Amino acid sequence: MKKLPTAKLLMLAAAFAVLPLSAQAQEKKDVSPGDVKYHAAPSALTDVPMVQSTNPKAPQMTMAEFDVARKIYFERCAGCHGVLRKGATGKPLTPDITLGKGTDYLKVFIAYGSPAGMPNWQTSGEMTEQQVDLMARYIQHEAPTPPEFGMADMKGTWKVIVPPEKRPTKKMNKYNIENIFSTTLRDTGEVALIDGDTKQIINIVKTGYAVHISRTSASGRYLFVIGRDAKINMIDLWMEKPDNVAEIRVGLEARSVEASKYKGYEDKLVIAGSYWPPQYVIMKGDTLEPLKIVSTRGNTVDKQEYHPEPRVASIVASHFRPEFIVNVKETGKTLMVDYTDLNALKTTEIGTARFLHDGGWDSTKRYFMVAANQSNKIAVVDAKEDKLVQLVEVSKIPHPGRGANFVHPKFGPVWSTGHLGDEAISLVATDPVKHKQYAFKEVAQLKGQGGGALFIKTHPQSKHLYSDTPLNPDAAISQSVAVFDINALDKGFKVLPIAEWAGLKDDGAKRVVQPEYNKAGDEVWFSVWSAKNKESAIVVVDDKTLKLKTVIKDPRLITPTGKFNVYNTQHDVY
Amino acid sequence: MKKLPTAKLLMLAAAFAVLPLSAQAQEKKDVSPGDVKYHAAPSALTDVPMVQSTNPKAPQMTMAEFDVARKIYFERCAGCHGVLRKGATGKPLTPDITLGKGTDYLKVFIAYGSPAGMPNWQTSGEMTEQQVDLMARYIQHEAPTPPEFGMADMKGTWKVIVPPEKRPTKKMNKYNIENIFSTTLRDTGEVALIDGDTKQIINIVKTGYAVHISRTSASGRYLFVIGRDAKINMIDLWMEKPDNVAEIRVGLEARSVEASKYKGYEDKLVIAGSYWPPQYVIMKGDTLEPLKIVSTRGNTVDKQEYHPEPRVASIVASHFRPEFIVNVKETGKTLMVDYTDLNALKTTEIGTARFLHDGGWDSTKRYFMVAANQSNKIAVVDAKEDKLVQLVEVSKIPHPGRGANFVHPKFGPVWSTGHLGDEAISLVATDPVKHKQYAFKEVAQLKGQGGGALFIKTHPQSKHLYSDTPLNPDAAISQSVAVFDINALDKGFKVLPIAEWAGLKDDGAKRVVQPEYNKAGDEVWFSVWSAKNKESAIVVVDDKTLKLKTVIKDPRLITPTGKFNVYNTQHDVY
Repeated sequence: MKKLPTAKLLMLAAAFAVLPLSAQAQEKKDVSPGDVKYHAAPSALTDVPMVQSTNPKAPQMTMAEFDVARKIYFERCAGCHGVLRKGATGKPLTPDITLGKGTDYLKVFIAYGSPAGMPNWQTSGEMTEQQVDLMARYIQHEAPTPPEFGMADMKGTWKVIVPPEKRPTKKMNKYNIENIFSTTLRDTGEVALIDGDTKQIINIVKTGYAVHISRTSASGRYLFVIGRDAKINMIDLWMEKPDNVAEIRVGLEARSVEASKYKGYEDKLVIAGSYWPPQYVIMKGDTLEPLKIVSTRGNTVDKQEYHPEPRVASIVASHFRPEFIVNVKETGKTLMVDYTDLNALKTTEIGTARFLHDGGWDSTKRYFMVAANQSNKIAVVDAKEDKLVQLVEVSKIPHPGRGANFVHPKFGPVWSTGHLGDEAISLVATDPVKHKQYAFKEVAQLKGQGGGALFIKTHPQSKHLYSDTPLNPDAAISQSVAVFDINALDKGFKVLPIAEWAGLKDDGAKRVVQPEYNKAGDEVWFSVWSAKNKESAIVVVDDKTLKLKTVIKDPRLITPTGKFNVYNTQHDVY
Repeated sequence: MKKLPTAKLLMLAAAFAVLPLSAQAQEKKDVSPGDVKYHAAPSALTDVPMVQSTNPKAPQMTMAEFDVARKIYFERCAGCHGVLRKGATGKPLTPDITLGKGTDYLKVFIAYGSPAGMPNWQTSGEMTEQQVDLMARYIQHEAPTPPEFGMADMKGTWKVIVPPEKRPTKKMNKYNIENIFSTTLRDTGEVALIDGDTKQIINIVKTGYAVHISRTSASGRYLFVIGRDAKINMIDLWMEKPDNVAEIRVGLEARSVEASKYKGYEDKLVIAGSYWPPQYVIMKGDTLEPLKIVSTRGNTVDKQEYHPEPRVASIVASHFRPEFIVNVKETGKTLMVDYTDLNALKTTEIGTARFLHDGGWDSTKRYFMVAANQSNKIAVVDAKEDKLVQLVEVSKIPHPGRGANFVHPKFGPVWSTGHLGDEAISLVATDPVKHKQYAFKEVAQLKGQGGGALFIKTHPQSKHLYSDTPLNPDAAISQSVAVFDINALDKGFKVLPIAEWAGLKDDGAKRVVQPEYNKAGDEVWFSVWSAKNKESAIVVVDDKTLKLKTVIKDPRLITPTGKFNVYNTQHDVY
């Protein structure tokens, strides 16, 4: 197998999810690290306030430099190394380590990167020489802890734009709302609501920055989207022109939002998980009013050491109990949060593995399959019995998105994931009743196009399995997708030249990401985007023929990434 | 009512529980603040390493000074102000507040105290002028965070002195172990095991420093004691000479230990709660092997703001479910921790009130009554239904110890508590079945000797209710106890001159503390101690006649405080 360097891929993945290539442009709106005016390291700064570290060996910095570096760190480095620099996907960068290395060594490392996966920030042109020097000095100081974000902060950002009593009492539009695609426009801080039937844009809704996911209420009426900046928007699909009805900010950085789905609790509650502060919050389902904040700080599953920054990764709503399933990255714990009584919140803490990331249900929606991406494992959590079923060894850095379920001729129902670290697609059997001997084992590996896979997808009405590879360094691979015939997996995959079909200018910067089915399961949508030149498209493939069906282009469709079909999202179809 | 200043009393209470008057002597064993050699504030220190604060306005300190101040702070100030100085019983002392006051103001405050309760550290002779200057400068710097204490740290301190297989298989001594009193010798770091029948000392067992409580295993065979330094000792009462069989340190500072009591889990598990780090740990009941560490960091019950230091106060074991009931001080939350599966730990978090402290069961052991001592409330938690029943308003700073249960002629079963802040003794009715109209209300207040009460006690075989007042500033009150006739509460109390009966030198420094019944309920034991001159005694009163029965004196009985009768502790008789 051709293996890609682990850290490199994770760095790319983080950059992909987190950092717009056009971040410089965005940043110029506020305090801009790109604009900062300083030259070389300070020597005899007597007239400016200096940062004082408890360790006198830390190199001198002015307060202004420190503030700029803090901002760059939060935007460029925190995703992998953690806000407090304790290490996660990237290595720890605490002063006990960095002071021993010294400024010169660190500068080289930051500027040129490493074969182990550190990006070449200076030679790639993403940081200037001055910025590299700044960051090399900055990481020898104690990491400043960002502020907390409690109930008063949340309530200060909470807005009910249209109160429940002023909303429609029935659907006021003619859209087939179950086939709407909520599409993240990453760099503009918007989602495009695209009519899946007509391929027309219904509305462009202002949201948080780089919306990570869209989820629906149990009824499918409301859409919840969460930005990387921890801003949540609630969109009412019954309005004549679907738009925001409520919004709130729940922290400084976040990734996950979900709505209650258990019988009797439909549309009642919403939960969001934050990266910073490390916590989750449960809100009212009709207004986003924040009700209960719960910290996720605690001890790791393996060494039982305290971790100050256990970030909330994926969250799903159970169909078997009135529970949210909250996956905590750095501690490697899955929390089954019973939401029946917020004044006596019951939580079952299941130890799984570090570092938990994304995942999805098996076809019965009883087992949640979540990737522990530095352990190369899938943790299988039983949402009926509230226990860990198995830690399944898979290939290098599984990244399932939500994964893909289909019936394998031999192994029965399987759930599958691609990997960031290599071309393997792992099939994990999920039927402990009729296929007990295979259940919760990696029963097979398919060979995909290469590493750098982010999302895999199929549909109950489809016989195809699609796997993207947007982070593969080979443009031919990152600009196309592999598709398997589920009934003939041993025949290997076909390659669909999605980027070519999009007909965009070929600058080598564009990537193809995230297959998403329409409600009927006969079309698959792909995002083709280039943050560099802002030219993007959505390519729609006919699932039966595997031919190009249509290309959606619109000047407003800037850097589309995730697309969430309302029906499939509502019913966890994948 | 004569009210005592709140903060003063809390300060005294903390000092009483936490700080030996002979601390200076103890401290000389290691880095000693009493020994530190420096004079006045440093001015031109060019040859010693200086502490650098992120705020340049913080006054200069050498590293050596900083280290000494940190130690003094931890021992003298942290109990009330919190390790991180966020404030609890005492006011917050973070630099945003202290820098504005300045060194001179702070020195005066520390030296002379305040009417609001700050002790007069310098004029009382407990700190030197130099130490006051040191502390005034120290608290203008950021509070250093003490180290964490995780599984590896615990395991590093864990010792099994006599493994289970080498212990007796039956009781090897002739002691009536149910009537042994495990007696804290605060300043020597020991407990004395005193034979309640003969009044002889069975053994003096080396333990942690200033043992806070003794608890027994469900069977009564094992005794668990926890020092203020978070060291736990496990004593086997079946040995020919009962002694330590296992020990462990679970943190840097702690107060509570308890053993599992639910049917099927007798003698299986032990739990301990720490002040620092803010966490609890569940251990094996036969060896103290640490199994599971859980952080208590989280959000406060009222404002839902993150608190970095929510300390574990009292813990009790439920008789209705396989649960420990863990009371978290700064967040005001009661955690019902189901210990049936430590790999899928179920916790019900019940919001109660800040700042939770001590408490005890009602007579049915269904309702846990816990004092929220800055809210002047008793939180009633239902251990059967796992929910908050009521927040009962009582008097000023309730301090029940475990409280005292008896049957009131009118209100039926009541649970009672004394107060630090005034002379009231509150009776809370606890029978929601036959006395529904009174249940979980403060149905009456008795008038005791005065504020400064710590412990109240009665026994099912007794018709008396005893209340100590060791923290009352009036020596006549602190050296005697009040006793009520339960059948004639309206007749007021008699005063028993316990200290006088002890026949110690009357230097005004001694105090009478903690009534404890023998197993039969016909004797009540009181500690009379003076840390200043180390002269101590235990006074045993005949409960029927209220006359002196005997005085236990022994040169080894240095500063006895808490006494825990094995049977009464095992069966929660109070």
